[in-house]
Amino acid sequence: MNREQIIEQIKKKGSFLCVGLDTDIKKIPEHLLNEEDPIFAFNKAIIDATAPYCVAYKPNTAFYESLGVDGWKALDRTVRYLRENYSDQFIIADAKRGDIGNTSSLYARAFFENMGVDAITVAPYMGFDSVKPFMEYDGKWVILLALTSNPGSHDFQFRTDMTGTRLFEQVLETAQKWGTPDNLMFVVGATQGAMFAEVRRVAPSSFLLVPGVGAQGGSLEDVAKWGITHECGLLVNSSRGIIYASKGEDFAEAAAAEARKLRDHMTILLSTYGVI
Amino acid sequence: MNREQIIEQIKKKGSFLCVGLDTDIKKIPEHLLNEEDPIFAFNKAIIDATAPYCVAYKPNTAFYESLGVDGWKALDRTVRYLRENYSDQFIIADAKRGDIGNTSSLYARAFFENMGVDAITVAPYMGFDSVKPFMEYDGKWVILLALTSNPGSHDFQFRTDMTGTRLFEQVLETAQKWGTPDNLMFVVGATQGAMFAEVRRVAPSSFLLVPGVGAQGGSLEDVAKWGITHECGLLVNSSRGIIYASKGEDFAEAAAAEARKLRDHMTILLSTYGVI
Repeated sequence: MNREQIIEQIKKKGSFLCVGLDTDIKKIPEHLLNEEDPIFAFNKAIIDATAPYCVAYKPNTAFYESLGVDGWKALDRTVRYLRENYSDQFIIADAKRGDIGNTSSLYARAFFENMGVDAITVAPYMGFDSVKPFMEYDGKWVILLALTSNPGSHDFQFRTDMTGTRLFEQVLETAQKWGTPDNLMFVVGATQGAMFAEVRRVAPSSFLLVPGVGAQGGSLEDVAKWGITHECGLLVNSSRGIIYASKGEDFAEAAAAEARKLRDHMTILLSTYGVI
Repeated sequence: MNREQIIEQIKKKGSFLCVGLDTDIKKIPEHLLNEEDPIFAFNKAIIDATAPYCVAYKPNTAFYESLGVDGWKALDRTVRYLRENYSDQFIIADAKRGDIGNTSSLYARAFFENMGVDAITVAPYMGFDSVKPFMEYDGKWVILLALTSNPGSHDFQFRTDMTGTRLFEQVLETAQKWGTPDNLMFVVGATQGAMFAEVRRVAPSSFLLVPGVGAQGGSLEDVAKWGITHECGLLVNSSRGIIYASKGEDFAEAAAAEARKLRDHMTILLSTYGVI
């Protein structure tokens, strides 16, 4: 899926919502545990209910890996279901991978060729040869961690060098020599507030994948205020706030209601900032 | 497996060799492709042949993920085979994971509870809450990326702050507030040569996992010269140099010969530096 197609979907749906499929077997409604594949059954119901209100889905691989082989099967089925039934959705594997060059190539093969997602999140610590192999696939995306939403982001990402540049700024600068706004996005946490202005100074036209709205406390208003561009340039993720909106049999309807609420808010923001 | 047990094995075997099980279906001997599970068949033969000469095995998860569900099954079987038949071997999942706290907990569950490895490699970029969940398991280890063996290590890891401290040094310093030499090791690439002295200045007693000897060009002599401690403090990994020593039917014997050669060299080094 290319940049123009993503922007087209955002404008068409009045939404830049990404639904995080952080599906935890310990948190899904009890009645699903009788299903042959409870994780997939949950994801399918969530997807069918929320698809009108979002433009992307982001399964976090940790939730699937924690179930071993069964988890990988459920993840594979989920991605296949999306591709076959919702080809207008952008699919992100939130895997935070990154290794030496020949090994990153294998991760790229796993996620882009075998699983068939559109994008993968990648950690920058190991530098260019850990990131480049993911960029060798036409129409696929790297989403590089820049400024994350968690408390630990303050340990290294804000570290300032001799010239006053923070590490996350250097990651943004350096990575833009490896990729373009057509195959490279950045992760910037919603909890970072006014730092979005700093991010936009260095990466004015890149798409940003923004976790941390909702359960982690980030504000959608602030993210849009500091981060939105004339093409939108944002994919804002919500996971727990949507998929666990209810633990009862109405979980899918409750998820749809939350997603719709966010979509409605996003439509106003897209209009306020002149994107639509 | 605790620190004392690792040191005991090193002294007993005269070896600080870790065999990297970077098993690529495209590189294993052809005659194995007829096996029901070629990856496991290859690993089993390599393990049986090399176990007398090494103290650790390190499957890199990328190689298994690239095969999807079948790959995860082969990885699971390999770890189970090691645990059941070679309980004196230290098992490292080279996964380079790391995510926000609640998600890292799930990776810890996947690797420590379900798969049952002793250690996992973790990327430091996201800071303390991405690392801590892996430290909550008694007898398990975090092996944190500090100074990696690849060319991209120069992009961010050597970045110097206002006080002259390089990023990898700050990672070493900061992480030692989160863990101890009893549950925390660091990855330092063999290709980094004299930088080992800098690493030892900041982390004098931590075990270091050292990739990059062999195919990547690092020297075992240099690693020992700069990195060895009175307890050894090193696990030196070799992957391709051992497991692909021959592509014929004699692949396991050839692997054993390479592992034995490294063990012999290591025994001399352990003796030279007074560890044994």
